[in-house]
Amino acid sequence: MKKAYNVEILSVGTEILLGHTTNTDARDISLMLSELGINVKYHTVVGDNPQRLADCIEIARKRADIIISTGGLGPTCDDLTKQILAKSFGLELEMHEDEKACLYDYLTNRGYSKEMTENNLKQAMLPVGCTVFHNDWGTAPGCAFTGDDGTIVIMLPGPPKECNAMFRACVMPYLRSLSDEQIVSHAIHVFGMSESAMDQIFRDEMNAMTNPTMAPYAKEGDCLLQVTAKAESVEKAEEMMKPVIEHVKDVLGDIIFGIDVDTVEDSVMRLLKEKKMTFAAAESCTGGELAKRFTDIPGASEFFLGGVTTYTNEAKIKLLGIAPKLIEEKTAVSYEVAKQMAERVRALLGADMGIGVTGLAGPDGDGVHEVGTVFVSLATKDGTYVRELHVGDRRTRSYVRRVSGNYIFDMMRRYLQGLEVIKEN
Amino acid sequence: MKKAYNVEILSVGTEILLGHTTNTDARDISLMLSELGINVKYHTVVGDNPQRLADCIEIARKRADIIISTGGLGPTCDDLTKQILAKSFGLELEMHEDEKACLYDYLTNRGYSKEMTENNLKQAMLPVGCTVFHNDWGTAPGCAFTGDDGTIVIMLPGPPKECNAMFRACVMPYLRSLSDEQIVSHAIHVFGMSESAMDQIFRDEMNAMTNPTMAPYAKEGDCLLQVTAKAESVEKAEEMMKPVIEHVKDVLGDIIFGIDVDTVEDSVMRLLKEKKMTFAAAESCTGGELAKRFTDIPGASEFFLGGVTTYTNEAKIKLLGIAPKLIEEKTAVSYEVAKQMAERVRALLGADMGIGVTGLAGPDGDGVHEVGTVFVSLATKDGTYVRELHVGDRRTRSYVRRVSGNYIFDMMRRYLQGLEVIKEN
Repeated sequence: MKKAYNVEILSVGTEILLGHTTNTDARDISLMLSELGINVKYHTVVGDNPQRLADCIEIARKRADIIISTGGLGPTCDDLTKQILAKSFGLELEMHEDEKACLYDYLTNRGYSKEMTENNLKQAMLPVGCTVFHNDWGTAPGCAFTGDDGTIVIMLPGPPKECNAMFRACVMPYLRSLSDEQIVSHAIHVFGMSESAMDQIFRDEMNAMTNPTMAPYAKEGDCLLQVTAKAESVEKAEEMMKPVIEHVKDVLGDIIFGIDVDTVEDSVMRLLKEKKMTFAAAESCTGGELAKRFTDIPGASEFFLGGVTTYTNEAKIKLLGIAPKLIEEKTAVSYEVAKQMAERVRALLGADMGIGVTGLAGPDGDGVHEVGTVFVSLATKDGTYVRELHVGDRRTRSYVRRVSGNYIFDMMRRYLQGLEVIKEN
Repeated sequence: MKKAYNVEILSVGTEILLGHTTNTDARDISLMLSELGINVKYHTVVGDNPQRLADCIEIARKRADIIISTGGLGPTCDDLTKQILAKSFGLELEMHEDEKACLYDYLTNRGYSKEMTENNLKQAMLPVGCTVFHNDWGTAPGCAFTGDDGTIVIMLPGPPKECNAMFRACVMPYLRSLSDEQIVSHAIHVFGMSESAMDQIFRDEMNAMTNPTMAPYAKEGDCLLQVTAKAESVEKAEEMMKPVIEHVKDVLGDIIFGIDVDTVEDSVMRLLKEKKMTFAAAESCTGGELAKRFTDIPGASEFFLGGVTTYTNEAKIKLLGIAPKLIEEKTAVSYEVAKQMAERVRALLGADMGIGVTGLAGPDGDGVHEVGTVFVSLATKDGTYVRELHVGDRRTRSYVRRVSGNYIFDMMRRYLQGLEVIKEN
């Protein structure tokens, strides 16, 4: 693109202001924009109120080149986004016949009454001259137009499935098409080094770089280096980034768990696929979260055989056959119990790998260990690896659980890549 | 409070604009403000940039009476919130000696070097004359002041544990102290009726009400009625709301799963405590999410004995002893398999109740069932209850999994309350 675009994401919905809905749309769009090297400068949330929405649009068009709205495109009287945005830019709405036909088909096939249908068909009213984004995942179409002042306006529906899918399928190609110049970005994901440590290593280089550029960012429990290049073509931009990425790989080595992956469990999934291997999980303090995280990924059932949540000592004894005496002697939060959890669940389900987690997520302690003490274990045909973690007693229960998961998934990743499984940092 | 306050939550942090962090602080503060009957009109997110932050403050003070900032109070050079907010309101920062002493104690006890300590001590620099909110959950204190123009400014650190705990412990009493008039609000949570159905039932009454007021809101998979009253005292406000809440209870009856509860699993937790009962879970399509949700609640281990994640047919056979023939005949997504899952996990762990879930969360189908088909089951000493759900094939995988959990937790709640377990709606 010719210029560095500044984006404002304007989410419309009283339910977000009430705290009933988390604004994941703004987060997901921001992440996808970073793939295009486009900067998000503001997120704004406003309720379903015409005047306040109009005021927010006025502010946004002064400080951003691209306004991306989410929400408020549905059939009810609360849904005002399209009307107010069109009005702000002096555009009329008109019936878009193709979209109307699609909506009519969809609604009548689903047995909606005629009256209901009429109301719903308003969703096909779109600003005159806009680019229409057809919605394959719901009813309300999205759209884009460029205002008199050059502001690019993009509207998407609020439901996360629709918003995400349409952004990737429609908006990303649309944004790429706006420009002769292509911006491409890659994220190098790292586990086991802090953002500030990465910053120290690369600071001088980063300061000296102009195109490509590079910047470190922290995520919950891990971090990443974002490399971005602009060129006349995607291929050229990729070529420019290649030596930079290779250099980073040389310096950071095996703490890189993936490039352009969402999470460390995504990397594990890819490796399991590659190696045709399976695993099973025995969870105590994470209470099902490891299984949940892995099964968030579609297709997980091919590699994750199943698991047990042995949240009590009794469950550890009954489901995994761990000796009561061992628990009594070592306590449930111990190297020995973690080791047996991984080994037993592996044997129980006949998996290639077994993982185990036992610890104290808090807020209450057990009088023996500090909150945040967790043992994670990985049982394989080559032996069992156990690591003791001290996540810290000032962390939330959910953080301790999350980070414990990152550690065990990274141990799996390292094992699957043939690396030293436990690398202290 | 004398006037209806309008709040803007101003979250400061580039990591949110990059999509690396979800803005849960704004959501959580919004939820807590609703308990005080205070309306949030805007959420804004801005990066760690002095000029853009100053501009956002200018906008916020024009349209809000209370600005609540989150983030940017830490020790690094990125942390600008305090400096910029103080400057915008013409205030100097000064060293707060009590906070400095606390910080010094904390840091030296943790073995930080002296240099590091000096940098950290800057966190005790606070606007002249402000109310200090001591941080028992982290290092950076928060604070509040009232500007010349009457704008109330409240600053909180960004880490969710600190932000949430300080809001409840310090900011809520502070906001209550600002006024002679007290606003109190209760949320009546409902499962099994849509927001629009509730709106139809109560619309005329709601329109006629002025104090107390009442409004329906949708949450993911369930909904709520918010009742709010203002009076000279909390007691008086409570008294005013009593007949309204009783009336709503009479009309809606047993679909109310709780008042002022976070989730339906919280209601289940309270009932299990009351009845001294336990449960165990067998999960297929939810893949550990039910266990994870319940164990998100501190103290869950007293009532949740454990569970199995039988994500594959093999795991259903090996961990629960379900006959391969049954799975072959009925498929894994069936009434019969769901029934056995709940019964077997109950027996396996000797729990009072067993729950089971099997279904198709998508995105891929199995060629037999529509995506979104889920069977949820509850095994008790009085028999086993199984319900067939059709969540819809246009829903996300995560929505199908979430809603399936709501259904099963609500079945548990109804059983524990001695109600008809399955109520079609």
